[in-house]
Amino acid sequence: MTNKTFSRVFAWPLVMVACSAIGFAQEPGGGARPASTNLPGQQFPQIDDDLRATFRLSAPNAQQVILDLDGRHDMNRGANGIWTFTTDPLVVGFHYYSFIVDGATVADPASESFFGMSRMVSGIEVPSKGEDFYEVKNVPHGEVRLRPYTTKSTRQQRKVAVYTPPDYDLNTAARYPVLYLQHGYGEDRMAWWRQGRVNFILDNLLAAGKIKPMIVVMEDGGIATGLSGGRGGMPASRPTSGTASTTAARGVTPDRFAFTQAFEPIMINELIPMIDATYRTISDRNHRAMAGTSMGGLQTFQITLNHLDTFAYIGGFSPGLPQDIETTLTKDVVGFNQKVKVLFLGTGTVERDTNPNIKNLHEGLQKAGVKHVYYESPGTAHEWLTWRRDLYQFAPLLYQD
Amino acid sequence: MTNKTFSRVFAWPLVMVACSAIGFAQEPGGGARPASTNLPGQQFPQIDDDLRATFRLSAPNAQQVILDLDGRHDMNRGANGIWTFTTDPLVVGFHYYSFIVDGATVADPASESFFGMSRMVSGIEVPSKGEDFYEVKNVPHGEVRLRPYTTKSTRQQRKVAVYTPPDYDLNTAARYPVLYLQHGYGEDRMAWWRQGRVNFILDNLLAAGKIKPMIVVMEDGGIATGLSGGRGGMPASRPTSGTASTTAARGVTPDRFAFTQAFEPIMINELIPMIDATYRTISDRNHRAMAGTSMGGLQTFQITLNHLDTFAYIGGFSPGLPQDIETTLTKDVVGFNQKVKVLFLGTGTVERDTNPNIKNLHEGLQKAGVKHVYYESPGTAHEWLTWRRDLYQFAPLLYQD
Repeated sequence: MTNKTFSRVFAWPLVMVACSAIGFAQEPGGGARPASTNLPGQQFPQIDDDLRATFRLSAPNAQQVILDLDGRHDMNRGANGIWTFTTDPLVVGFHYYSFIVDGATVADPASESFFGMSRMVSGIEVPSKGEDFYEVKNVPHGEVRLRPYTTKSTRQQRKVAVYTPPDYDLNTAARYPVLYLQHGYGEDRMAWWRQGRVNFILDNLLAAGKIKPMIVVMEDGGIATGLSGGRGGMPASRPTSGTASTTAARGVTPDRFAFTQAFEPIMINELIPMIDATYRTISDRNHRAMAGTSMGGLQTFQITLNHLDTFAYIGGFSPGLPQDIETTLTKDVVGFNQKVKVLFLGTGTVERDTNPNIKNLHEGLQKAGVKHVYYESPGTAHEWLTWRRDLYQFAPLLYQD
Repeated sequence: MTNKTFSRVFAWPLVMVACSAIGFAQEPGGGARPASTNLPGQQFPQIDDDLRATFRLSAPNAQQVILDLDGRHDMNRGANGIWTFTTDPLVVGFHYYSFIVDGATVADPASESFFGMSRMVSGIEVPSKGEDFYEVKNVPHGEVRLRPYTTKSTRQQRKVAVYTPPDYDLNTAARYPVLYLQHGYGEDRMAWWRQGRVNFILDNLLAAGKIKPMIVVMEDGGIATGLSGGRGGMPASRPTSGTASTTAARGVTPDRFAFTQAFEPIMINELIPMIDATYRTISDRNHRAMAGTSMGGLQTFQITLNHLDTFAYIGGFSPGLPQDIETTLTKDVVGFNQKVKVLFLGTGTVERDTNPNIKNLHEGLQKAGVKHVYYESPGTAHEWLTWRRDLYQFAPLLYQD
């Protein structure tokens, strides 16, 4: 980490498919094979060598079936009531999608489901040729642990996902720094693991000697900030109390700012003390980072900037930006540069082209002399491959002094 | 554990709803509230005081929507294309269900999805009044850990779910006995955790002083016996090799016996050595149990009876029965009674009424003098509440001498 303002744009050693448009029904090309996100034994969706995806659904009596993937696309009815659609070449990465069967929005029964878009939604992994930093490899593996806990102040039953590095149980004298890593709106504490592949990314980085071993803590900063359960891959339990719960029960979805407000005291007063008491952490600010995607980035700014005594590392992965963030960050440049070891801002070039606010913040910070790292993920949008790459860039910067 | 053959039928301190039939559209009764298995903020399905469940789906353009829950039931189209159906009183416990929208079988977008019936399927928890042994309580909690590993013989990438008891990380000198716990057909290594609530059952039993702390190992004895991934709640990876994989890729679903054949060498040659090398186990037969539900019970019989040097405790929870099981178990009664510390057979009274084969086996064993425990779960069918109760009965019998 140098002491002056700089930005880094990594040139990935491959040509990215930047086309995100999906057209009318295409013919699938050569090399079509089942997506890795399919359920076992399921042949569709398939992805061909040009990254066109072909979807299928059996709906013999339906009048209309729509594929909802970056826009809505009428599927074509074939023999025996099998509906199909082949997309234009897709952007690499992980995309949510649904089917709309005569007006009912549902997940694809042939594909893995994920909690995203505030519901169970299908996901398709579009492979990025030559890019395997998030794949499972034959290296030592850490664990992802699901732990229930009870908040001391409100007696709320919650749960947290914790990544522990491969040597955690072998080296019982060691203590580890901690990264608090947040998901986006409509997702939950399982997203960084299931959609983001956090454990494989860190296992691989560690095996390559590129990062310090660290604990990663993933809690629910969304709907469960005021609900006792119902999500997180754990068996559901009943709602107890809390603002967001009450709001949700009335059928009003709290906005990103309400979630952030609700999550800050949980994180500061409950989660961090519980983690430091339960795991072998190094519990000072120099060994504590927070990062998040989208709404989780908004929460990261809100929480870390209110608690710079608690965090030395800040990561915004396509973050939502608090109002006046540039003013906040530039009002005491010398103090900020001394206190914050790494401020990381990431965005995908595809999302940047339509919403340049993160790039603009980067340029403002650069101009003001606020030390930070800016990273653009080539050819990706506001989604998980961007954020996996953000983590891959961010993690090696942590705990290096 | 006494030395003579006996059976135990526990009288639960409540009146069970034994009616499993679902009739035509009913009126929901009093006290209707969202099921605990709903996604956060979702109001339907709801369950009333009489355990009638009301389901809803928005499908404005559909001609027919069917609820598939213990039979098929035509839902009723209301205003704005909202389809509803209220069941007769349901059997308590956890039930899989789907919607069929103009011929397309899909999960309920308002409910949690589970891997069951070989696909992502909805589940509804029908509460059992006064019965809370599987609920999250304010007791010390263990963790459920997801661990990737590579098989030594075939270099297959696999993953395993491991429950560690609450004191595992605090008491680093302690070693623990192990229960290998298998799911049923069409489910996977996440089922005992997500559908079965294994961690809460054991946390609660341990807090009540009724069991020895133990490690529970849950692997995939189904479709993933020959697939490298695609399931288990972990990010998917691509199929590599193996019999079941090849079969599945051809669109032929392997049967229960094929899965059992495929799983035995994985369990004996790969999983157990890896677990014993990775966790602080007591690695002798007297501290190793195996149990399983349905197909997992079939696997339990097959594997433990082939390896009585490896296991001292055997649990069949509504098990599939190998051919000639009674002959096998009764051919050396004295030897078997000496070797096997607990043989447990469980069934639900509702399933027993249509398929008494487990009860028949119990009676045969009793007659032959084979020491075993027989348990009937009152008012439940071939599903998860039966198996949660089986575990609740079985776990206290383990590792007591």
